[in-house]
Amino acid sequence: MAHQKSKHSKRIPKDKGSRGRVFRKKPGTDPILLFGLHAVEAALANPNRAVHTLRATENAAYRLAPLIAGRGLTPERVRPKDLDHQLGPDTVHQGVVLEVGPLQPVALEDIAPDGTLLVLDQVTDPHNVGAALRSAAAFGAAGLVLTERHSPPLSGVLAKSASGALDLVPIVHVRNLAEALTELGERGVMRLGFVEQADTALEDTVLKRPLAIVLGAEGRGLRQLTRERCDVLCRISTASTMASLNVSNAAAIALHWAQRKTG
Amino acid sequence: MAHQKSKHSKRIPKDKGSRGRVFRKKPGTDPILLFGLHAVEAALANPNRAVHTLRATENAAYRLAPLIAGRGLTPERVRPKDLDHQLGPDTVHQGVVLEVGPLQPVALEDIAPDGTLLVLDQVTDPHNVGAALRSAAAFGAAGLVLTERHSPPLSGVLAKSASGALDLVPIVHVRNLAEALTELGERGVMRLGFVEQADTALEDTVLKRPLAIVLGAEGRGLRQLTRERCDVLCRISTASTMASLNVSNAAAIALHWAQRKTG
Repeated sequence: MAHQKSKHSKRIPKDKGSRGRVFRKKPGTDPILLFGLHAVEAALANPNRAVHTLRATENAAYRLAPLIAGRGLTPERVRPKDLDHQLGPDTVHQGVVLEVGPLQPVALEDIAPDGTLLVLDQVTDPHNVGAALRSAAAFGAAGLVLTERHSPPLSGVLAKSASGALDLVPIVHVRNLAEALTELGERGVMRLGFVEQADTALEDTVLKRPLAIVLGAEGRGLRQLTRERCDVLCRISTASTMASLNVSNAAAIALHWAQRKTG
Repeated sequence: MAHQKSKHSKRIPKDKGSRGRVFRKKPGTDPILLFGLHAVEAALANPNRAVHTLRATENAAYRLAPLIAGRGLTPERVRPKDLDHQLGPDTVHQGVVLEVGPLQPVALEDIAPDGTLLVLDQVTDPHNVGAALRSAAAFGAAGLVLTERHSPPLSGVLAKSASGALDLVPIVHVRNLAEALTELGERGVMRLGFVEQADTALEDTVLKRPLAIVLGAEGRGLRQLTRERCDVLCRISTASTMASLNVSNAAAIALHWAQRKTG
């Protein structure tokens, strides 16, 4: 791809998995650049997050001053266009870029045993995963489970879409999702899979906690083994010719509905 | 902004309103480039959409063959990298770019008098507006109302996020949203405004059709006059410290809930 070498592409770490051309590196081999006020604020406030360097405009540094001081950081003062130059002109950085270390891996058994989990089966788009993570935080989900392969790296683009939730919600990467779902079943978790053509509607399903909301990528949906490991397969009732929902919107609806109908 | 002049920025029509730097031109002065299979498919299938030229890979042309034939179009055969070059390397074009004319303006009184409307008060981000439009289509909304100012143009980025819904859901641009809400009120529409700090929860509100779901931009929310013109102000019940939802996720939740609790 000739244009992979454009200025923009060179500068920002390859975050986009939506075209399936980018393979995930081992965690921690690349520097992680977080940008956007909410994402950076949450990272600074997270005691489990190692922070390295901060570049900020005067305004952004002012807004984040207490957290910056709490970390003992001295931000490099920059102009917005310096960050445009660093991240590419289409990145909404809001005047701040923070280089951080990766978060410590979380195991499935570290997740709170009650509450609601969001499980994404090979959803590759970092915007969608970030937006789903944000909804998970808003609805107080106990954690997010991702597949080790075909999930986006937990870096800038995802963190920006998550608007701070990356540093709030525990994220578990599992090598084998079918096994992880079996393990959750053994712990008494109700595994609710979302499939567009399911006979049962979410709205007619009796939900109970602990609950795992299991969603797949658009188009492909849940893999066969993932479906088989769910207790119930359901669809979100839509009303029209165009039935398909964006995965982060489906996650938001499911989390909201589950909050009302459990607990 | 030096980087506004980068290759990428020159090639793709300025679609992003999220940083507020781009002013909307009069409709029809720029060519509108739609990309992505769903967006292009819906435009080809929309008899009210003028289509000009089509550039497509062999695969994409094959998938869209019946619609292309129905339009009497002869696609220019291209390689994926030709479209990368045309649109910028980060655009997920799925092998197809269609140049189209703008849709005819729709007036508020042209919208079906029952059903549910989605109203966005100066939401500038084309991804969010496109995603909200997609949910509006999925839940069979009668239309989308946008403010003339501070809304994104109805072009490529928005159309891609809408995944075909741009050519399905009637969109009304209003110069004065407060007046439009008054007009809707006179037609018996229940105007339901979403405000993070509202005392009333959506889930405790009695809804009726016709209904207008009124949402504002993140951070700023609804403008004062918009709030004043609503019959009820409510919030979506969230569960956590991070209460804020992405506007397209809030729209999805509201549309889904309204579908269950009205009609």
